[in-house]
Amino acid sequence: MSTERLSINQITVKRWSFEEVVRALARHRIGWLGAWTGPVEEYGVERAARLLRDHDVRVSSVCRAGFFTGTNPDGGGLDREANRRAVDLTAAIGADVLYLVAGGVRDDLDLAASRHAVADGIAELVPYAASAGVRLAVEPLHPMMCAERSVIVTLDQALDVAERFDPAHVGLAVDTYNVWWDPNLLPALDRAGARTISYQVCDWLVPQPHPLFGRGIPGDGAIDIPSLTRAVDAAGYTGPIEVEIFNESVWAANPDDVLVRITATFTQSVLG
Amino acid sequence: MSTERLSINQITVKRWSFEEVVRALARHRIGWLGAWTGPVEEYGVERAARLLRDHDVRVSSVCRAGFFTGTNPDGGGLDREANRRAVDLTAAIGADVLYLVAGGVRDDLDLAASRHAVADGIAELVPYAASAGVRLAVEPLHPMMCAERSVIVTLDQALDVAERFDPAHVGLAVDTYNVWWDPNLLPALDRAGARTISYQVCDWLVPQPHPLFGRGIPGDGAIDIPSLTRAVDAAGYTGPIEVEIFNESVWAANPDDVLVRITATFTQSVLG
Repeated sequence: MSTERLSINQITVKRWSFEEVVRALARHRIGWLGAWTGPVEEYGVERAARLLRDHDVRVSSVCRAGFFTGTNPDGGGLDREANRRAVDLTAAIGADVLYLVAGGVRDDLDLAASRHAVADGIAELVPYAASAGVRLAVEPLHPMMCAERSVIVTLDQALDVAERFDPAHVGLAVDTYNVWWDPNLLPALDRAGARTISYQVCDWLVPQPHPLFGRGIPGDGAIDIPSLTRAVDAAGYTGPIEVEIFNESVWAANPDDVLVRITATFTQSVLG
Repeated sequence: MSTERLSINQITVKRWSFEEVVRALARHRIGWLGAWTGPVEEYGVERAARLLRDHDVRVSSVCRAGFFTGTNPDGGGLDREANRRAVDLTAAIGADVLYLVAGGVRDDLDLAASRHAVADGIAELVPYAASAGVRLAVEPLHPMMCAERSVIVTLDQALDVAERFDPAHVGLAVDTYNVWWDPNLLPALDRAGARTISYQVCDWLVPQPHPLFGRGIPGDGAIDIPSLTRAVDAAGYTGPIEVEIFNESVWAANPDDVLVRITATFTQSVLG
């Protein structure tokens, strides 16, 4: 069926616990989940793996490790132990893609040095992830998140980092919200080719209702998502498509209704 | 003195009328104003020109013409007449730089076509501006404004457009808030060289207090502004440096206090 590539990221229905999400996906006949470490740890990693198997739900990606610059919205600096724990969790629940969020600008405001720290941090994590069979996905975030979350802000820049490593170990995560504005997007997707190991979709709402939570259900905003999906596919990506939405009204709605709406519009608003 | 390049954009003290701003700049010994068409028209263009002369205040730039895609936050489509009026106003008040804001994504969400419309719109306006002695400044806005305000979002992209025209007629506007995150910023500034005909500064506040009004006084945020100023200067720009701030707390403050603070911190936080 046309929604066989549909994956729901846990944050889209964040009111639900891990168990509630997995049961709901089975109920809605959605085969993929984009997981976050927090809810999985809360439920218990081994239990989570069992629950997923029992409901025939696969994990398209895990969010997240990273913050290699030592700057992140929760404070606390680079946490190598947490990053390795995220790798272990990813492998334990049968997933093989772990998102990396680079981290924001260092306190000394040295953007170039912050970017070097990201490449160094990834290099340090790669052997551990590789031995666990987990591929790291470098995700460029939208430039509006450069200060606090990610000094990696374009696909080309993410590729410059990822290409230092074996493609079996380090790939690229493409999220429509983060990259749609990029004048060099199509050549960069082409350049990425099989390096693209995860694809997330959501729309850009106009106006943005919040500096961080301005994402909408595909079809509700300014992004021509079907064109991007075609470009991602044409470059060689054939995997699941995760719907990941940060939006206070989506979070306030009944999560079952949100899943119904996403499923009903997926073919037209995402695949095109 | 070290603030001789300082220009204050009218929006920074938007509570003031045009007359109040000009008188205040003279009082604070600030020699440059970044003007907006609205307040000038309200005061009267010829009167404005006289007032500026009488107070020895020069206009570093005028904001704005453009919206060539037909999409702008105020609605109404492409207004060729308003664009020509902005050219006339710029010349009449003795300025020679008119900012262009490209316009957002067209209703059909075709980003590539929207970008073509910008190049076409500029081509149409250039002869009129050139004959008035006004240089058009293509301004890349931050990618967060791509949907509603400007499909031109990087310096390289702005240059790709500007370079189609005689540098005497079409240049580039660099605003720290809009471009600081760009991984290709330094090569692009170098490429721009003397095409850079206006330079605006403000800081990126962390966190952003508002989706549009998150700009701070230089020194209050995440941007290493002195480094950017040095790069802009090294590429050949020697003109005024406009402080342009969209921020509700700055607007709520006493405008005289705002000018005192900007002047006091200019050398350290902008020139470096």
